Amino acid sequence: MTYDPGNIFAKILRGELPAYRVYENDRVVAFLDIMPRAPGHTLVIPKAPARNLLDVEADDLAAVATGAQHIARAQMNVFAADGITVTQHNEKAGGQEVFHLHVHVLPRHTGVELKPPLSYKEAPDVLAAQAAKLKAALEG
Amino acid sequence: MTYDPGNIFAKILRGELPAYRVYENDRVVAFLDIMPRAPGHTLVIPKAPARNLLDVEADDLAAVATGAQHIARAQMNVFAADGITVTQHNEKAGGQEVFHLHVHVLPRHTGVELKPPLSYKEAPDVLAAQAAKLKAALEG
Repeated sequence: MTYDPGNIFAKILRGELPAYRVYENDRVVAFLDIMPRAPGHTLVIPKAPARNLLDVEADDLAAVATGAQHIARAQMNVFAADGITVTQHNEKAGGQEVFHLHVHVLPRHTGVELKPPLSYKEAPDVLAAQAAKLKAALEG
Repeated sequence: MTYDPGNIFAKILRGELPAYRVYENDRVVAFLDIMPRAPGHTLVIPKAPARNLLDVEADDLAAVATGAQHIARAQMNVFAADGITVTQHNEKAGGQEVFHLHVHVLPRHTGVELKPPLSYKEAPDVLAAQAAKLKAALEG
């Protein structure tokens, strides 16, 4: 399996596509999923090219995990979440749709099921408002 | 939220309960889930007490992530998997049932859905055989 630099997350990293960015450090970027399974659904990706968990370098993997923790803690406050679900998909059979490593960090509320993947497109103004709140919390 | 040392994974770490262990290093232990959502379903946990992603120390989190990668790579070979799905649940609303941090690493095959959580109990001889093969691959 190889890395295809034409994937949409690589384009976001290069600034060729827009994204509702909420966090960035030297190794990772986090942005909202525009088809959220729950309000505040955020993706954390490494800046370095990596197809998925199977090929990512150790330092980038650690940074993605720490980034996911950072996002999860902020989501608990910003979205008054009762819990967090984290998923990460590898290869088509594993549920992967975009072939740049990404971790889904999903705020959860008691009694509310996740929407099925790719079933709902959120309105831009809602995403922009959520991103602003989450970004402010992450910078605080 | 606090850590309860009476949880079943803490008991496995202390050797008070048996487990189909497949991997161990100075920071993490991995063992088969006895109610697998797919054959080879493995859990990776830190040795240090941590309730979930929200409170785990950075070094332990990095070790769990690296451990999950190690397991995933071995599962691809041992179970001839086409992909891997990783899930991690935090607090009851996030799907957490045992309150010691754990990452689920699930071998996937094209066209085969995951079983619902906690829906199927695997036979001990099947688990023992799977654990032996996975352990051998991880030590190889």
